[in-house]
Amino acid sequence: MVFLAPSASQFSVILQKHSIGQKCGHILFLMFLKEISCAHQACIYLIKNTEQNINSVKNHSNMLIFFFFFFGLNVMQICLPHQCREEEVIEEILRLNEDSRVHGIFLHLPQSFLSKSVRNAIKPQKDVMVKVTLVRGNLNIQNFLSCNSSLDAPLVGKMAVLLGLEGPLKVTLQFLLQNNGMMVQTRQWSSKHLSHFEVFTKMFVAAVVICQHVVRSSRRWIQEQQYQPWRLRPLKLQPLSPVPSDIEISRAQTPKPISQLAQEIGLLPEELEAYGNTKAKVHLSLLNRLQHQPNGKYVLVAGITPTPLGEGKSTVTIGLVQALSAHLKLNSFACLRQPSQGPTFGVKGGAAGGGYAQVIPMEEFNLHLTGDIHAITAANNLVAAAIDARILHEATQSDRALYSRLVPSVNGVRCFSPIQMARLQRLGINKSDPSDLTPEEIRAFVRLDLDPEKVTWQRVVDTNDRFLRKITVGQANTEKGHARQTQFDIAVASEIMAILALTDGLGDMRARLGRMVVGSSRNGQPITADDLGVTGALAVLMKDAIKPTLMQTLEGTPVFVHAGPFANIAHGNSSVLADKLALKLVGEEGYVVTEAGFGADIGMEKFFNIKCRTSGLTPDVVVLVATVRALKMHGGGPNVTAGVPLPKEYINENLQLVADGCSNLKKQIQITHLFGVPVIVALNVFKTDTQAEIDMVCRIAEASGASAAVQCHHWSRGGWGSVELAHAVKKVASQKNHFQFLYNLQDSIVEKIRSIAQKVYGADDIELSPEAQAKIDYYNQQGFSALPICMAKTHLSLSHMPEKKGVPTGFILPIRDIRASIGAGFIYPLVGTMSTMPGLPTRPCFYDIDLDPVTEEIKGLF
Amino acid sequence: MVFLAPSASQFSVILQKHSIGQKCGHILFLMFLKEISCAHQACIYLIKNTEQNINSVKNHSNMLIFFFFFFGLNVMQICLPHQCREEEVIEEILRLNEDSRVHGIFLHLPQSFLSKSVRNAIKPQKDVMVKVTLVRGNLNIQNFLSCNSSLDAPLVGKMAVLLGLEGPLKVTLQFLLQNNGMMVQTRQWSSKHLSHFEVFTKMFVAAVVICQHVVRSSRRWIQEQQYQPWRLRPLKLQPLSPVPSDIEISRAQTPKPISQLAQEIGLLPEELEAYGNTKAKVHLSLLNRLQHQPNGKYVLVAGITPTPLGEGKSTVTIGLVQALSAHLKLNSFACLRQPSQGPTFGVKGGAAGGGYAQVIPMEEFNLHLTGDIHAITAANNLVAAAIDARILHEATQSDRALYSRLVPSVNGVRCFSPIQMARLQRLGINKSDPSDLTPEEIRAFVRLDLDPEKVTWQRVVDTNDRFLRKITVGQANTEKGHARQTQFDIAVASEIMAILALTDGLGDMRARLGRMVVGSSRNGQPITADDLGVTGALAVLMKDAIKPTLMQTLEGTPVFVHAGPFANIAHGNSSVLADKLALKLVGEEGYVVTEAGFGADIGMEKFFNIKCRTSGLTPDVVVLVATVRALKMHGGGPNVTAGVPLPKEYINENLQLVADGCSNLKKQIQITHLFGVPVIVALNVFKTDTQAEIDMVCRIAEASGASAAVQCHHWSRGGWGSVELAHAVKKVASQKNHFQFLYNLQDSIVEKIRSIAQKVYGADDIELSPEAQAKIDYYNQQGFSALPICMAKTHLSLSHMPEKKGVPTGFILPIRDIRASIGAGFIYPLVGTMSTMPGLPTRPCFYDIDLDPVTEEIKGLF
Repeated sequence: MVFLAPSASQFSVILQKHSIGQKCGHILFLMFLKEISCAHQACIYLIKNTEQNINSVKNHSNMLIFFFFFFGLNVMQICLPHQCREEEVIEEILRLNEDSRVHGIFLHLPQSFLSKSVRNAIKPQKDVMVKVTLVRGNLNIQNFLSCNSSLDAPLVGKMAVLLGLEGPLKVTLQFLLQNNGMMVQTRQWSSKHLSHFEVFTKMFVAAVVICQHVVRSSRRWIQEQQYQPWRLRPLKLQPLSPVPSDIEISRAQTPKPISQLAQEIGLLPEELEAYGNTKAKVHLSLLNRLQHQPNGKYVLVAGITPTPLGEGKSTVTIGLVQALSAHLKLNSFACLRQPSQGPTFGVKGGAAGGGYAQVIPMEEFNLHLTGDIHAITAANNLVAAAIDARILHEATQSDRALYSRLVPSVNGVRCFSPIQMARLQRLGINKSDPSDLTPEEIRAFVRLDLDPEKVTWQRVVDTNDRFLRKITVGQANTEKGHARQTQFDIAVASEIMAILALTDGLGDMRARLGRMVVGSSRNGQPITADDLGVTGALAVLMKDAIKPTLMQTLEGTPVFVHAGPFANIAHGNSSVLADKLALKLVGEEGYVVTEAGFGADIGMEKFFNIKCRTSGLTPDVVVLVATVRALKMHGGGPNVTAGVPLPKEYINENLQLVADGCSNLKKQIQITHLFGVPVIVALNVFKTDTQAEIDMVCRIAEASGASAAVQCHHWSRGGWGSVELAHAVKKVASQKNHFQFLYNLQDSIVEKIRSIAQKVYGADDIELSPEAQAKIDYYNQQGFSALPICMAKTHLSLSHMPEKKGVPTGFILPIRDIRASIGAGFIYPLVGTMSTMPGLPTRPCFYDIDLDPVTEEIKGLF
Repeated sequence: MVFLAPSASQFSVILQKHSIGQKCGHILFLMFLKEISCAHQACIYLIKNTEQNINSVKNHSNMLIFFFFFFGLNVMQICLPHQCREEEVIEEILRLNEDSRVHGIFLHLPQSFLSKSVRNAIKPQKDVMVKVTLVRGNLNIQNFLSCNSSLDAPLVGKMAVLLGLEGPLKVTLQFLLQNNGMMVQTRQWSSKHLSHFEVFTKMFVAAVVICQHVVRSSRRWIQEQQYQPWRLRPLKLQPLSPVPSDIEISRAQTPKPISQLAQEIGLLPEELEAYGNTKAKVHLSLLNRLQHQPNGKYVLVAGITPTPLGEGKSTVTIGLVQALSAHLKLNSFACLRQPSQGPTFGVKGGAAGGGYAQVIPMEEFNLHLTGDIHAITAANNLVAAAIDARILHEATQSDRALYSRLVPSVNGVRCFSPIQMARLQRLGINKSDPSDLTPEEIRAFVRLDLDPEKVTWQRVVDTNDRFLRKITVGQANTEKGHARQTQFDIAVASEIMAILALTDGLGDMRARLGRMVVGSSRNGQPITADDLGVTGALAVLMKDAIKPTLMQTLEGTPVFVHAGPFANIAHGNSSVLADKLALKLVGEEGYVVTEAGFGADIGMEKFFNIKCRTSGLTPDVVVLVATVRALKMHGGGPNVTAGVPLPKEYINENLQLVADGCSNLKKQIQITHLFGVPVIVALNVFKTDTQAEIDMVCRIAEASGASAAVQCHHWSRGGWGSVELAHAVKKVASQKNHFQFLYNLQDSIVEKIRSIAQKVYGADDIELSPEAQAKIDYYNQQGFSALPICMAKTHLSLSHMPEKKGVPTGFILPIRDIRASIGAGFIYPLVGTMSTMPGLPTRPCFYDIDLDPVTEEIKGLF
């Protein structure tokens, strides 16, 4: 029977005299043993100064520390100087407060240091020093009594000694104990009348209780880090009819503070970097903390071949997680691509989903977000500036001049920087003293000898700026006639974006950035970012971009937004890192839903063959999105034009067009089966769709091998409208599948391209241009042939001919040219011409976009 | 004498029978009256559902509400549906928790709703429902008693009635009261034996107490918003010798969490948007909240004419606030420019100060920060893309085609967007129905008729990319031969940056963005961003950039980083908004220290004539920074070259060079006096400076009219090294000054330029080129002549000849050309050629920059 009570600055205990040596000590020890298994993880910090180092058994604090060690706690000591100031103590406490690995703080300091501000600095969560709690005056009487009653020692007739208590509390406790039938004695803490036994027991009991607190605190901490179903508080949705505009729906919902969402899904505060109140970056250290957690189920949303009518893959993705998390109460995460800002102001608008299946706030999602694309732009353009400046400097300086500038004497000392040492090694020069190099070695070192005609690196902007598609740079006099033709791409087409999407951590990203080939030398050697010496700076520019951004859906369920590489010259999938983090966060019973760009023949094929190969993750189920309208177009429906009313075929029932168009759906289902993954067809229902049309699609889908085919109404109803899909996903994802890649990396480049062309696109064969053949020879020679293939093909047809809808057959796929993203790690054959820079239409979206200067509300985004 | 005690779900009061009608009620009422002056600002929220609308006097909650109104509280009711769910109640509570304008929450709900999770949802700060506190079991006995003893009614012999109390608490209180000599009765809350008087009094007292809590809570809130000396916790600095590298010093100091700093300086949580843990954007709503607060003192740091040896204005700025805040314990704020990222990777390195006077973390300061420059880049380049696309579209479409695209039929309806209506009005077309326009009006409306030769808008990147100094764009076939020559500037040279630095709010910024002239039409009319229809989109892109970013110095004192316009083609000063926010935050006794780019002849002149004129703020004192080395160069010392050891003149004592060089210092002091502002010379001491040299500079400075001249050692010692400067600033700033502008806006453009050239630069006269004269005529004709002048002149000399050090005389200042930033609001004459795009050297900084993938530490930034 132990009470802790406050005295001015010391521990004191109230001992129930008759039971202490036996029953109560015993009980406490048993309680402690139950928890001792956690003890090796529990950590307590002692803050002390040198004055407290006197080795005295009488010093009760030293005795307590002895007990801490005895009980197996991890005790870390912070020694402050003898004459330290109060602020220094507080500073240490504040630092420990923020460190969640610290479960308790014990102030082992002379009394003069234990000022109120020092004591108040300790966070309540760290508060294993019960003393501090009590001194703060927050005695919890009810807990106090209930705690007592849990001890099975009856109190009646026993003696209690109240030590070191004063004032009203003494009176109150005395009364309470008497009321419970106990006899009470009171003594001063410093009383000389205490027996040795009492002193020792007092210490022991105090130590046990403190240890217990530490262990409990650490156990709670450990538990919090284990998987558990989220205590997610969904946001309530009250869908209106007719459905308002996207920005109106987004604005009508108040998002949860992002720190709250983070807490609900089990993130620790130090794993989160808020960017305002609605978005936050998540630290990659999470992967380490949850490394032993099993992954959740991995769901890919893909689509039929896209048409101008839209299929709604993003809304299905978001509607599905809204249904899973908010309605089925299953942990689930959506992982989305960050959209380019260019189209937001151009013609397409935003990409945060739509209707009642959106990421909110949609304007944050669609605009700067957390600056990742800006970081990519900065990194990409630093490489470009370095290339042209280097060409100029090499052209206008002698070897010696270049060498003396590249390896300057700083305070009389000349040495190579680490990245220059790396280049020397690649050149086979094993010297580290700059004065040892021969003139030939100097020449090899200082001259990248980049061929201006063979620079493949382009500058980027995140703007739809068509006039930058082909430009001439370097026309100022200062560039001394070294003008050359080049181009800008849209920022998301940068190889750095593809790297961001495929990397698994900082070290890997840095290595990939260094491997990026920016062109070739006049004698045909590939020149890399490492050769330019720019790798470290790129890694520094990208250090925050590598962390995925947490946002939420309209129903308050979590979303990662991270990376958005082009889906033709790159692989069109969100980041590996976001998926990995999400799979750990949802835990074994949870679901991660991600989306692949374009149709399943492109985005999904690359998801499997490139993204899953890189990440080592295996998908559990594919959700294939279709609409009745788009299927009608594949079935031979007329073309549509923006601004002109839809042809009647798309508004009235037309079962023949639907039946014919389902050929495309069937083909995409078959493609999914090539990879051994089950597929569910999600029919995104429009209000003009008739029941007969809907039934027909579902029937054909199931007959074509889909594990299920369900209709979805998330756009108009939110997650509730996709509950049927969520149930289907839950059921199918629990079945075992036999995932396999379409080709082996060791196959030749031609074989790999042919595999995709024949098995996925349905081509009879491929045809290589001479340029393509020459590139293949070059890549083989450079040792790049074992990379996966990333086809740059139109997304509007299974073939290379955009106008061929449905399932084209009997065609030969022409490979015009082949390029490589060595840093990202794939080879991309060009089938036809790919524009990597969109343009603005005559009336861009920005005509309707505005900001209310008073309310700060945004208008016109969609 | 009133106790509040918990019952399961109802209010109950303990009445001291004999005094309630008289003494006690009276006392409470008096206490209340003292606080009533705050009551109109106090706000309480009632959450209730429709079930509680029964109009019953017996319903004690309704009665309480009546009293709230009676006492003049602002009562807001939230009506939830009759059958609302627990989560909805919690959702409302959580929303109110986050709203600091809400001082209390009263749950007026049936008992079934008052679950533990509902009650626990209320933040303790809102907790005017004492009931809730008690139910939580945190009864504070000590407060309890001390509160009682503050009432001057002796308790002995009085009767207490304990209402609705149960369990141990009843017993404890009973004992306590008896111990104080009172008689105690206990009754159930629902007891039928209460008299009407008792019921009414009970209600009244409960209402008074609740009101008192609300009022107290609101008073605390109001007090928190008033000026008070900050409770700033400085970070301790232990300077090492020799001084380590900037990044090492920065990394060795652990910054305070930015939210903590914000709290220390009186920001409310909702005024802060954290971007990670070390930087945060501050809402402009602060200006509104503190509008009645007097401003602090306004200190400008300027310099002598810059030399390659550096003067250290930024370190003086930071050292000074470290001294003021951390050592003199005076509220003070530094307002700095955000540096361009280009030079960080080029040759200059970062701009976060240096040594022991830095902004930390310096890598965050020098890299993306909170994305403002990226936002400017995006906005700037959207305008550029819109210009070229518009030229192309106008060139390739008929009036009708343009019109039908610009004003399309959407669902059968055609209408002008607001920004198009504005253009119609500028054109004098007062029609709002698109079908009413005549062909001539349509032509005027759809054709901006931009002359490609007269487009003045440039694209920007935040990279030192010299090859973009002159380029040809639009060479792809898709641009149909509309190629034209143009250039990229570095991002900080964008007019949008100058606007960000000068604007005073969202509305003003939007208007300035719309006024930006991007070129002129073939018939010579200026074409604006408004004409392009892009203004709203620009405002949306800039909506976060307009909020200043809060960071901290090495000693934990606050810094705003906001805007960084070029100092030649723009005005080279940080933002008006940051200064205004900081002046309110430091309060009347505080100091805001800001810095002007280049020498006092340029940066300071523009600070006074452009920035102060725009903001309406008046400076109190100028700190003029000089170094012995730089003065020696002005006195005729030899040139220096990077990488070569310093000539001995700069290392050994040379009093003659110092004396001669002080001419420049004297001239800059005189320039300051032109504006009627006192000046303090801060001599930034290097270890090679001799005492005789230092003394000489101080003597000459004071003889030249400086109010003080002090030596500073912040670089090696932190704020402690600038305490003398801080004292001088405190003294001089408290004196009254007579600030005046150098010229009137109504003077002609030529007169204004001549004023600056003669009075500031010391020129005999100015000489206008024919181009310049033509521009002046054009600006006069367009009504732009009343704008201030922003000289684009070399910063390396008081004259236009960079090599002329000291104080050049007898020269005529040539004005080569004149341009205008109509949105930013100034005219900038070009004196010589200004490069707006720096280049990379042969060995850029990036060779040494790297990121450790494991520790995430950055190396090589400086």
